[in-house]
Amino acid sequence: MPKERTPRHPHFHPHDFLVRPGHPLASYEDAADLGKAYSGEREEIDAQTAVDQAEIVALQDRLFASKTRALLLVFLAMDTGGKDSAIRRIFSGVNPQGCQVSSFGVPTPEERSHDFLWRIHPHAPALGMIGIFNRSHYEDVTVPLVTGALTPEECAVRHAHIRDFEALLHEHGTQVVKFHLAISRDEQAERLQERLDDPQKHWKFDPSDLESRAQWGAYQQAFADALHATSTDDAPWYVVPANRKWFRDAVIAHVVAHTLRHMELDYPAPVADLRDYRID
Amino acid sequence: MPKERTPRHPHFHPHDFLVRPGHPLASYEDAADLGKAYSGEREEIDAQTAVDQAEIVALQDRLFASKTRALLLVFLAMDTGGKDSAIRRIFSGVNPQGCQVSSFGVPTPEERSHDFLWRIHPHAPALGMIGIFNRSHYEDVTVPLVTGALTPEECAVRHAHIRDFEALLHEHGTQVVKFHLAISRDEQAERLQERLDDPQKHWKFDPSDLESRAQWGAYQQAFADALHATSTDDAPWYVVPANRKWFRDAVIAHVVAHTLRHMELDYPAPVADLRDYRID
Repeated sequence: MPKERTPRHPHFHPHDFLVRPGHPLASYEDAADLGKAYSGEREEIDAQTAVDQAEIVALQDRLFASKTRALLLVFLAMDTGGKDSAIRRIFSGVNPQGCQVSSFGVPTPEERSHDFLWRIHPHAPALGMIGIFNRSHYEDVTVPLVTGALTPEECAVRHAHIRDFEALLHEHGTQVVKFHLAISRDEQAERLQERLDDPQKHWKFDPSDLESRAQWGAYQQAFADALHATSTDDAPWYVVPANRKWFRDAVIAHVVAHTLRHMELDYPAPVADLRDYRID
Repeated sequence: MPKERTPRHPHFHPHDFLVRPGHPLASYEDAADLGKAYSGEREEIDAQTAVDQAEIVALQDRLFASKTRALLLVFLAMDTGGKDSAIRRIFSGVNPQGCQVSSFGVPTPEERSHDFLWRIHPHAPALGMIGIFNRSHYEDVTVPLVTGALTPEECAVRHAHIRDFEALLHEHGTQVVKFHLAISRDEQAERLQERLDDPQKHWKFDPSDLESRAQWGAYQQAFADALHATSTDDAPWYVVPANRKWFRDAVIAHVVAHTLRHMELDYPAPVADLRDYRID
């Protein structure tokens, strides 16, 4: 099959949001509101997001049929960063039979008695599947760094293990793509306040979110360290400007569609010489 | 919260397709083409299916938020019966974070060295989730009965274990609903022939489908036995007329929406007294 051309997004390229291995990083928080500059083109960008979503649905069907590759999408963000909402908005529409979402909470005592990748590995997507990690092994190089449970040196060792783990997945046929949804501290304040003010959102308010908010700077630094250390050609990180939900979704949908296209997926060949068969 | 009224389907009631515990069963194959009688009302029924799907999406959001109940949907059918297609068509649109599809193939040697429910149990949906079984523990009371690996008496013992297992799930808060997609032998012939004739569908053709087709009558009997023995108030079976895909989807979507409504789901209360909190 001839390689299909990837349709260009009219306003940005996935590389605009890529964390380039070895390049110094600007502040992610500065990235949070980049969508603002695109507000004038929102209508056109929303239309492209719909095109990208349709593309994701179509290519997921091939991915599932061919079972030669897998796609793993990893989401990292501060609380209220929009992980749940982005997953719902972009991936509702995908055949749930080919898409599994794994959420990782605070490690249980049993999980803590194993290495930090032990609880993650069983959730790696099988060939044919899209796996989505809502939180991931990256919690284990950010939370313990902020709380002081790990030193920066111990964290660097974990970064190396993560690179090896993701290389293993890649070698097996799994394309790994990682998204940090960047919101600003002010935007988080607004979203938390909404949960306090709007009775419909009361149930979403979790007092523990305030504890990580109090450590905002330390988390930003931990994210920066992790992204810098683990954005590789085989498992790149993208920093998604997430203050504006429509722009966040536009970037994620386009990167995912772009990635699936580059995987050159096709339907499988028939399992047998079909001329031999008669139905009676 | 006041109990919501379940909107009535203009053309049928879920009970029309229910396998009533203790009632003698008509041939499921006769049920396969029941949709034909509704062809004149197709447009109206399709519109109702869209309403039911939107209802499923909305109620799944509550199910996921409240985490007090779960829904397990089990699909059983002859090859080409439409399990994959029904799952794709009805549940694309549902937030994949709250919906997991589990497919069960031929048991592996490790699985065969355990009791027949051992490989099934880990896939039971957690509270908050919709679990969908594409094939299930019902393969283990149909295939081995047809091949002679199990006697009818041994199968009856398994039926009892299945009733106990599903009662356990129900007691934990999981509503179990089971669908047998009934197609006729002639309809299967057409669908298999399509896979031979249409190059786009070649890859779907699996020669082993012809082996179970050759045992059609034995499978129909095994299905009838299993449904009769395991349709309970807590885990009912529905026989879905599946020769016509639009009617199949209409029945499944309506039964699922009806079931979710009767679960009286609501959003959870806030975790804390919110007056105590300030965002800064």
